[in-house]
Amino acid sequence: MHEFQLIKNYFQKLSKKSSSALNLNDDVFFDKKNKLVVSVDTYIDGIHFIDFKKPDLVIKKIIRSSISDLICKGVQPKYYFVSCSGNKKKLSKLNLSKISKSLNQEQNKYKILLSGGDTVFSNKLSFTITSIGFANSIVYRNKAKINDDIYVSGNLGDSYLGLLVLRNKIKLNHFLSKYFTNQYFMPNIQLKLTAQIKKFANTSIDISDGLLTDLDKMINVQKLSYKLHLEDMPISKNLKKILDLKKLSKINFISKGDDYQVLFTASKNKRGIIKRISSDNGIKLTKIGLIQRDSSKSLIVDHKNRKINLKNKGFFHKF
Amino acid sequence: MHEFQLIKNYFQKLSKKSSSALNLNDDVFFDKKNKLVVSVDTYIDGIHFIDFKKPDLVIKKIIRSSISDLICKGVQPKYYFVSCSGNKKKLSKLNLSKISKSLNQEQNKYKILLSGGDTVFSNKLSFTITSIGFANSIVYRNKAKINDDIYVSGNLGDSYLGLLVLRNKIKLNHFLSKYFTNQYFMPNIQLKLTAQIKKFANTSIDISDGLLTDLDKMINVQKLSYKLHLEDMPISKNLKKILDLKKLSKINFISKGDDYQVLFTASKNKRGIIKRISSDNGIKLTKIGLIQRDSSKSLIVDHKNRKINLKNKGFFHKF
Repeated sequence: MHEFQLIKNYFQKLSKKSSSALNLNDDVFFDKKNKLVVSVDTYIDGIHFIDFKKPDLVIKKIIRSSISDLICKGVQPKYYFVSCSGNKKKLSKLNLSKISKSLNQEQNKYKILLSGGDTVFSNKLSFTITSIGFANSIVYRNKAKINDDIYVSGNLGDSYLGLLVLRNKIKLNHFLSKYFTNQYFMPNIQLKLTAQIKKFANTSIDISDGLLTDLDKMINVQKLSYKLHLEDMPISKNLKKILDLKKLSKINFISKGDDYQVLFTASKNKRGIIKRISSDNGIKLTKIGLIQRDSSKSLIVDHKNRKINLKNKGFFHKF
Repeated sequence: MHEFQLIKNYFQKLSKKSSSALNLNDDVFFDKKNKLVVSVDTYIDGIHFIDFKKPDLVIKKIIRSSISDLICKGVQPKYYFVSCSGNKKKLSKLNLSKISKSLNQEQNKYKILLSGGDTVFSNKLSFTITSIGFANSIVYRNKAKINDDIYVSGNLGDSYLGLLVLRNKIKLNHFLSKYFTNQYFMPNIQLKLTAQIKKFANTSIDISDGLLTDLDKMINVQKLSYKLHLEDMPISKNLKKILDLKKLSKINFISKGDDYQVLFTASKNKRGIIKRISSDNGIKLTKIGLIQRDSSKSLIVDHKNRKINLKNKGFFHKF
């Protein structure tokens, strides 16, 4: 059973009395009256991060993943809470001191503040991060309009290639190994977009599970479809180089998740302002497709407008 | 290493820039400007609850334990977030449906609302609960004054006897077994005290780890001591009956934790108002001791004012 299916079946009815909880059908909780925005996520060793050999990097990935939920909604994160459980070895003094140092760096980079949490003994290492921000409004899910352009920030696929390197599935030189694994551990989340996105986006989500999965989630209660252009998907020069060199297919890299880029839709009349804001603020924003009427007809096409068949849409936390 | 020692060593410096986080030296986070109060706690199978044979009861205990952190500070909890991880067996459809039903009952009882969370697969069952409320002020830790009376709400020790019953360490008849195990799973947390406690308390904490441990924590940065009277410790008629019958010692029951009662101190001139509020609102509040000057002289005395030697002060989450 998928995570969102679980939530829907058993927990959604519990939040139905509140319009703030958005029927648990969004990545954040928003209490308009108190201007409060909250996101809670759990990260498990071996599932959400491959191992704990680099605690300094793993904790950065976890923190960025958590605040990314707020950032994609146009909300500046302010406070974060860390609950960690693990054994003596994984939460050794050395590792805790590395974690603490990394948290300090992330705090300075993203202007957030550790505000509490819990540390408990367990034979399974896991982290639950609660991120909190304040906002008068947020960009919701499921507010796409027919004929909206679909945009994505930054680049896709670097993180997945980093994962393949870490898993020894692919061998690269030192420089490229470092580049891609850094992208995996320290995604370039778009803090600068936070203050701008409400000016043009109709709906948004961050890409954690994968471009197509998250696009589906972004419009999951709307009777809409999408048409995406593979050719337009933004990838880094380094990823392009590897794809060419190793004869790998782009489609296998752009939707594997862990990108933590912002996916959003905007009306066509916003193209000008988006271009200007993108260039004024140095935020890469790429138009990759279109929202369409019929919910059964979502597709991704190649440069000759031919439909591409997909085997796997991305990553799910399976039960 | 104790949980609070861990926090102190590695994480406290990260929150030092904020007065809101109370230097992580309180059970809740309070942002005065935004009137926000947050508590985050993690509960692990086999540590914080003995097993998961009764998911409907375990989840009630967890929720009450979490909102108890706010209630003891004079804050009405409003929202809660549940992150759970576990395997297919422990988070089976049947168990999820029981959890959902219990959450619904707790929501109605305590006027709280499920507002989000996360469900992930893991071989270790755990829950992290984030509870949120709003308040203009809270009752802080470490604000006791010399000669303050020490009070506790409700009764102590029932929960521990319930645990002994669940562990088959003690045999009781059906009625008493049910009574004590219910006290273990569903502590009588003092929601009604929330609206009153700011009128008289100088400092407060809830009793989760045990009366003495939590009393130490409540004044841990103050150069103060306490004197407690064992005779005055409130216990239920049922517990008194068992202690008499089985020739068990009261001291072994009143400080084992999981009581989720409110421990607080108040100036002597508040005795009148405390008595009145207690009787008007049907909240049992018992004076059990006194705050004293010298931090090295904390003690607990019997009915003849003789010092009682203690082996174990309560429960710690040990690393």
